[in-house]
Amino acid sequence: METATKSRAPHLSDTQRLAWLRLIRSENVGPRTFRELLNHFGSAQAALDALPELSRRGGKKSYRLFSKDKAEAELAALYKIGARLIALGEPAYPPLLRHIDAPPPLLAVRARDPLQQELTGTQKTLAIIGARNCSAAGAKFATQLAGELSTQGFTIISGLARGIDSAAHHAALSSGTIAAFAGGIDTVYPKENLELFSSMIATNGAAISEMPISWQPRARDFPRRNRLISGMSLGVILIEAAEKSGSLHTARYALEQNREILAVPGSPLDPRSVGANKLIQQGAALVQSVDDVLDIMEPKISMSLPLHQGIEEPTMCWPELDSPDTSSLSPPPNANEQDRQAVIDALSETPIDQDELLRFTGVSLQTLQLILLEIELAGRLERHKPNKLSMIHAGTT
Amino acid sequence: METATKSRAPHLSDTQRLAWLRLIRSENVGPRTFRELLNHFGSAQAALDALPELSRRGGKKSYRLFSKDKAEAELAALYKIGARLIALGEPAYPPLLRHIDAPPPLLAVRARDPLQQELTGTQKTLAIIGARNCSAAGAKFATQLAGELSTQGFTIISGLARGIDSAAHHAALSSGTIAAFAGGIDTVYPKENLELFSSMIATNGAAISEMPISWQPRARDFPRRNRLISGMSLGVILIEAAEKSGSLHTARYALEQNREILAVPGSPLDPRSVGANKLIQQGAALVQSVDDVLDIMEPKISMSLPLHQGIEEPTMCWPELDSPDTSSLSPPPNANEQDRQAVIDALSETPIDQDELLRFTGVSLQTLQLILLEIELAGRLERHKPNKLSMIHAGTT
Repeated sequence: METATKSRAPHLSDTQRLAWLRLIRSENVGPRTFRELLNHFGSAQAALDALPELSRRGGKKSYRLFSKDKAEAELAALYKIGARLIALGEPAYPPLLRHIDAPPPLLAVRARDPLQQELTGTQKTLAIIGARNCSAAGAKFATQLAGELSTQGFTIISGLARGIDSAAHHAALSSGTIAAFAGGIDTVYPKENLELFSSMIATNGAAISEMPISWQPRARDFPRRNRLISGMSLGVILIEAAEKSGSLHTARYALEQNREILAVPGSPLDPRSVGANKLIQQGAALVQSVDDVLDIMEPKISMSLPLHQGIEEPTMCWPELDSPDTSSLSPPPNANEQDRQAVIDALSETPIDQDELLRFTGVSLQTLQLILLEIELAGRLERHKPNKLSMIHAGTT
Repeated sequence: METATKSRAPHLSDTQRLAWLRLIRSENVGPRTFRELLNHFGSAQAALDALPELSRRGGKKSYRLFSKDKAEAELAALYKIGARLIALGEPAYPPLLRHIDAPPPLLAVRARDPLQQELTGTQKTLAIIGARNCSAAGAKFATQLAGELSTQGFTIISGLARGIDSAAHHAALSSGTIAAFAGGIDTVYPKENLELFSSMIATNGAAISEMPISWQPRARDFPRRNRLISGMSLGVILIEAAEKSGSLHTARYALEQNREILAVPGSPLDPRSVGANKLIQQGAALVQSVDDVLDIMEPKISMSLPLHQGIEEPTMCWPELDSPDTSSLSPPPNANEQDRQAVIDALSETPIDQDELLRFTGVSLQTLQLILLEIELAGRLERHKPNKLSMIHAGTT
């Protein structure tokens, strides 16, 4: 048993971490494709070796592999600012985040102690999020709630935005609070929160990011980041959010991720209350005191992982950890041209279920998955939830 | 069929109305006892004739029957100010109120047109209630909501209190709005709302009261009145209410009466929001727009009466309407002293179910009910919901 446990010792070697980084940064590889590639090729390095040929078969003339030099430079830059890359499955990886759909294979973490396992490895976490242009009452309530929940041993997660996010981080400083960044781990946004961020890092807080270092956040990076906020948290508390706000995106992720959604009500005459009030109408728990939060969350804290049935443990993401030699895995099948054409013909811009595609084309599951990877790496496949696929035609990109 | 329908023509004769008034105003007779008495004696007059002897058997030396003179004086005073007494079962009696537990047998109604059947006879009604010391935002929202619901054809019910109640009545003036009084129908409370009340009456509004004319409301009359507000309404909308407020009493009645409970949320930092927010936590519908109200209420409006299963139609309350001669009814049984003592001995200060009492004493149901009436009229019985009874001992009153 000792040996079996040890053979899955959850740390990547430096070589493996480099390969993981190159793979996730390569063209058309997202967290989901990363996982598919590891499932097929057994290790990030084997996947890297296969990438150019795969994408060529998918119809792409030249494929941009993320170079070893660039990956080494990124790692060096991270180390220089005291940040580390944590891989899915390593102890410091936020435990709840492992259970979301398509978790980032690598997270940059920045903290006073570069490993900071106690903090990012905790699962007694609550997100507090809300309006950037919050009211004074909203900020006051966020401060009260975050402070009291910290005292109760909760780690407060938020997005370092103005308004509610800042108030929550501030109030939770003493017990350590975690921010998820939409940009690179060295890119504090907004700039006015640099001082708050410094205080966070100085007081055992941390920041995480899945984006490359120095990445300047674009509008579409924020929803993507929001899935990390809810993903790291047992529950999400919403304080003031207008309709169609980013906070509501986070709440939607929380719903998908089967996390608790809690909302603080407000007057219907304040547009900043509409979002939270609507969530309550849709079934979110109404919060007007820390006791309300504790009543809802306490039964969840003692639940052992995995929190949710039906969310698969990503063990297949890291079979390589202690076996850089992949000879034990069966070699990936080589799809023939006829199968490939059948799959490409069957796909259209209308999303179709993978199971239907399987029945329609008659190819084997392993072959289908390989062909889909090829098309995806060529930038021609779009994946939709849950498990649906569509083709991106040249004219539509 | 014509005859059968006519024989239940739903109007009391003047003589009957006088007898009903004397009965409900007599000592130890409340709405529930009134109904029991009518069930036993077939008419209010027959019950009046039996009262002194019944209470004597229950152990009371002298019983105060409400005199004919006093009743005539009350009727005259009502007519003088343009008010009428409407009996349970008559067309102008608020239809939803018939279905509550222990509805008042007689309601004083005051309106521009003394009968005002269209208004008090409507069942497209909503109560809007809330804090007396409401915030400006609360009053504004009550005004908006009441105005919009009026436009949608709802009659707004409230309690003419300061704050939310006044705002709701004001905004609903044009379509007629109904106030329920805790005091007599001529006793406008608070005085500062005299002008609002005059406007209500002038614009097809109405007021109702079950209390004697000129009755000055005491603290304990307000909860009793609140059951009329919810009882007349399909649903109760709560806007701002502190904990332990009268509005929460009304909401509790609404729950017992199986009416919709709707609440407008507010900031947890405002104590006036705590009550409404708590109701939402307990399952009340969160309201932030008139559309939210319509979504909830529209399916209820078309429901035919009786709204609730298990609430018995009070037909037995008025078999006398067209048969002042009660010879067709079997004469009430005369309980013997042995049975009476058995029931008295079985009762204690601990409430007991009537069914258990029946089994324990072995007397017939009709005999038991008669004995209970006797004890009740003697002021020694307390009735608890649902259907439980206890003895009031001399030392405990």
